[in-house]
Amino acid sequence: MGIEIERKFLVKGTDWKQVGKGQFYQQGYLSNHPDRTVRVRRVDDQGYITIKGKTSGASRSEYEYPIPIEDALEMLHELCEKPIIVKVRYRIPYEGLVWEVDEFQGENQGMVVAEVELSSADQTISLPDWVGQEVTSEAKYYNANLSKHPFPNWSSHRE
Amino acid sequence: MGIEIERKFLVKGTDWKQVGKGQFYQQGYLSNHPDRTVRVRRVDDQGYITIKGKTSGASRSEYEYPIPIEDALEMLHELCEKPIIVKVRYRIPYEGLVWEVDEFQGENQGMVVAEVELSSADQTISLPDWVGQEVTSEAKYYNANLSKHPFPNWSSHRE
Repeated sequence: MGIEIERKFLVKGTDWKQVGKGQFYQQGYLSNHPDRTVRVRRVDDQGYITIKGKTSGASRSEYEYPIPIEDALEMLHELCEKPIIVKVRYRIPYEGLVWEVDEFQGENQGMVVAEVELSSADQTISLPDWVGQEVTSEAKYYNANLSKHPFPNWSSHRE
Repeated sequence: MGIEIERKFLVKGTDWKQVGKGQFYQQGYLSNHPDRTVRVRRVDDQGYITIKGKTSGASRSEYEYPIPIEDALEMLHELCEKPIIVKVRYRIPYEGLVWEVDEFQGENQGMVVAEVELSSADQTISLPDWVGQEVTSEAKYYNANLSKHPFPNWSSHRE
């Protein structure tokens, strides 16, 4: 098991986008239960299945296994809850950390979110200029919830 | 993906038990949704994660991946719905097929069920003497349901 500690932010402007090609992600959920999510993901030509426990602060237990891309695509299309999430992920190194910026397509078109993984919950980080409001603890930004309640349906994009 | 086609029966008497040592199983569910179950299993010293689609007649889509035993045990104890299922499985060859007999322990103590996997739904099979009533289509015998509604709580064991 790994423990995942990450912080999540909204993104301002397009300055972050000087980083070359991103990777293509599709992901869906076999379980969306808050105590145990089970995610199927394709990243370019590789499939993954990922199990995550309950979020406690910025931490969460996580188990991830590579699976054949064919299995991942079948499960995404035939078994996962709809709609699945489609996004391009860019990896941006900044002052010793790697920021992951997700530019959503499909049902969540228009949303851009940045995440950074930390080694401890109280680690000090410096924020790139293009990083805006923190949304780490806002459940509606969890990918598991974006699948059920896509971004364009929110009453306000900054509510 | 594989397609699983199997038939399930109750077991009579103890004649089937001339087969040496069985394998020790523990299994639990990360998702019990009828359209997509996600099962964590330990078989002796190996862990597995298994995703199954909706049952359609005797068929069901199935994806299974080996995972580290440590991960399986952590997920069984910390993430899976309780109670988990504990059983010993015996493999019994009979007229060209292999019967799997599950002798349940723990919450389902006292239940013994035999399953046989077929290559097509209409395959003709001969039944060993110790095989009783067929329960293939009875949902209460699905392992996913045995976890939620263990055998001793049923109003009658042959209801």
